[in-house]
Amino acid sequence: MKNIILTGDRPTGRLHLGHYVGSLKRRVELQNSGRFDEINILIADDQALTDNADNPGKIRENIINVVLDYLSVGIDPTKSTICVQSTLPALHALTFYYMNLVTTARLSRNPTVKSEIQMRGFADEGLPVGFFAYPVSQAADITAFHANVVPVGEDQLPMLEQTREIVEKFNRIYGETLTMPTAMIPENEMQRRLPGVDGKAKMSKSLGNCIYLSDSAAVVKKQINGKMFTDPLHLQISDPGHTEGNVVFTYLDAFCTDEHFAEFLPDYANLEEMKAHYRRGGLGDGTCKKFLFNVLEETLAPIREERARWAKDIDTVYDILAAGTVKAAETTNETLAQVRKAMRIDYFTDRSIVKEWETLLRKANQ
Amino acid sequence: MKNIILTGDRPTGRLHLGHYVGSLKRRVELQNSGRFDEINILIADDQALTDNADNPGKIRENIINVVLDYLSVGIDPTKSTICVQSTLPALHALTFYYMNLVTTARLSRNPTVKSEIQMRGFADEGLPVGFFAYPVSQAADITAFHANVVPVGEDQLPMLEQTREIVEKFNRIYGETLTMPTAMIPENEMQRRLPGVDGKAKMSKSLGNCIYLSDSAAVVKKQINGKMFTDPLHLQISDPGHTEGNVVFTYLDAFCTDEHFAEFLPDYANLEEMKAHYRRGGLGDGTCKKFLFNVLEETLAPIREERARWAKDIDTVYDILAAGTVKAAETTNETLAQVRKAMRIDYFTDRSIVKEWETLLRKANQ
Repeated sequence: MKNIILTGDRPTGRLHLGHYVGSLKRRVELQNSGRFDEINILIADDQALTDNADNPGKIRENIINVVLDYLSVGIDPTKSTICVQSTLPALHALTFYYMNLVTTARLSRNPTVKSEIQMRGFADEGLPVGFFAYPVSQAADITAFHANVVPVGEDQLPMLEQTREIVEKFNRIYGETLTMPTAMIPENEMQRRLPGVDGKAKMSKSLGNCIYLSDSAAVVKKQINGKMFTDPLHLQISDPGHTEGNVVFTYLDAFCTDEHFAEFLPDYANLEEMKAHYRRGGLGDGTCKKFLFNVLEETLAPIREERARWAKDIDTVYDILAAGTVKAAETTNETLAQVRKAMRIDYFTDRSIVKEWETLLRKANQ
Repeated sequence: MKNIILTGDRPTGRLHLGHYVGSLKRRVELQNSGRFDEINILIADDQALTDNADNPGKIRENIINVVLDYLSVGIDPTKSTICVQSTLPALHALTFYYMNLVTTARLSRNPTVKSEIQMRGFADEGLPVGFFAYPVSQAADITAFHANVVPVGEDQLPMLEQTREIVEKFNRIYGETLTMPTAMIPENEMQRRLPGVDGKAKMSKSLGNCIYLSDSAAVVKKQINGKMFTDPLHLQISDPGHTEGNVVFTYLDAFCTDEHFAEFLPDYANLEEMKAHYRRGGLGDGTCKKFLFNVLEETLAPIREERARWAKDIDTVYDILAAGTVKAAETTNETLAQVRKAMRIDYFTDRSIVKEWETLLRKANQ
């Protein structure tokens, strides 16, 4: 069996450090590991439209942002297929047929959907059917590529479980056709979720607590210095500081290495030494933040440079996207053909149904 | 504006006299009236699958039955386009996008869906999402053909109302694109619904109370003589009979003309004279049923002959269906292109988005 990954993002905004830590970094590692036969990266504009139906312009604009973010972090279009969901007609058809295999009660029980309904305020204004059904659409995405590996965060496990149920039911009713996917959960706790610069659980555009991969160095510095936690019990540098729940140290946990100390803060050999000094007093927040800035810049500066380079050549980016989409259309149309064959709704692929119908009518007349 | 009809049937069984009286007869009249630019007849296999997902073979078999029924009642493939729903990819895409414009609460309130949920026992076993969403899929069917006229029974009005809401909302958000359809309700009360031969409200395969357009004369006779009402207060021919609620007379109301009396029962000039005799006593049920059989055969015999003729040439029937489907695919793909353009998700139709993205990125860097 081939090892095939499907992953992707909703193009509702530029990607940020949270995306980088939570998925992009790992995605590039997987791409370069040589362990996978196919890596498919879906720009999920159709899914984004399920709760942005009145604002498709936002999606249209952010497709380019997301693609530039991909290319600048090291997604290599010769190794990974980047494609746009709405241009793959097979995904609509598969969603349509899978909807027959899932009950409304089952969708209503999906905890991810439940919490998102709350988050997006649909409880008041009404839940769009498209949003309600998006776990089915995700099943279409995953199975259309015959993906057996789906890198997801733990919060997305109920979504993958829905796909697995659809695969099980489809194969049971129509015969073995679809590939059963498994989740690939981040191994490292730190990779799972980076908090916002304000310490809130998640980076979110509306909270203004993001560091975007496309932010300038000046903006990154401003976010660190202006919005990150300064320990209120650490008024004097000599006061003991607290590292628990201190977002500066949470970020350092996620990003810094011993090499960073050698380069930027040679007073300490590693993060443990630095934390110990901060806790006993004598290490100022300004020093910590400056170090964090330097550490983040080690990641961000090359990404920013790559992004600037690609941004000068949108024609090529367009070609990459168009080529990826053509390739993905072939793959997914092939899967749809298998699905239609299994469901025996492939009436017009050849004339064999003529004989079948003739036999049927003969029998009916006997 | 063009006058365009969309109509169709779910291919879950052979069509019966109820279909003929309720829609097929009128459909042929409309086809031959010359008043319409396009008549599109959709064999709604996808819709049939929403509650027959585990039995696609039934749908596959009945497509030929429905097409033969169409051709035998006088649907003329040179005037009407007969096509198969599942082979029109635009319908899946339109359903997908329209689902974003309808809330789950709105779908749940649809009285037609509500009563069908009861009828099909989904209350117990769970409602398939595809079935729940089929009013949205119908909106896709109707709008894909830019149909402005949809012949429906009164019970189907809530379905059309759902389509009208989707059209209104789509055009409001994305600009005038879709055609607003109107219902064409049967003018004649009698055309609205023919009861089963047992007098139950509706012909239904499971009740065995149908007269199929493809039934032999012997079966028709058996249904009339064996299952139709015999007035229990009309034991002696001389006893007064009751015409109200007497299904034999309900059928005669629907089918017989004065010419039928001249030909088969010249004792009476018309149905009123016959009814009057039955009511005052002296006219036997057997005579009435025999007359009804002759009357129905005036309609059924030519249909049966036509059906036998077409059944000998399934190759040609296949070609008709394939050609209609190709034509309908062109029409509906054109509509989908208009929809995608209006939604501005037509990223890859030309390279114009490159300039747009370039401008966007320039502004973001200012």
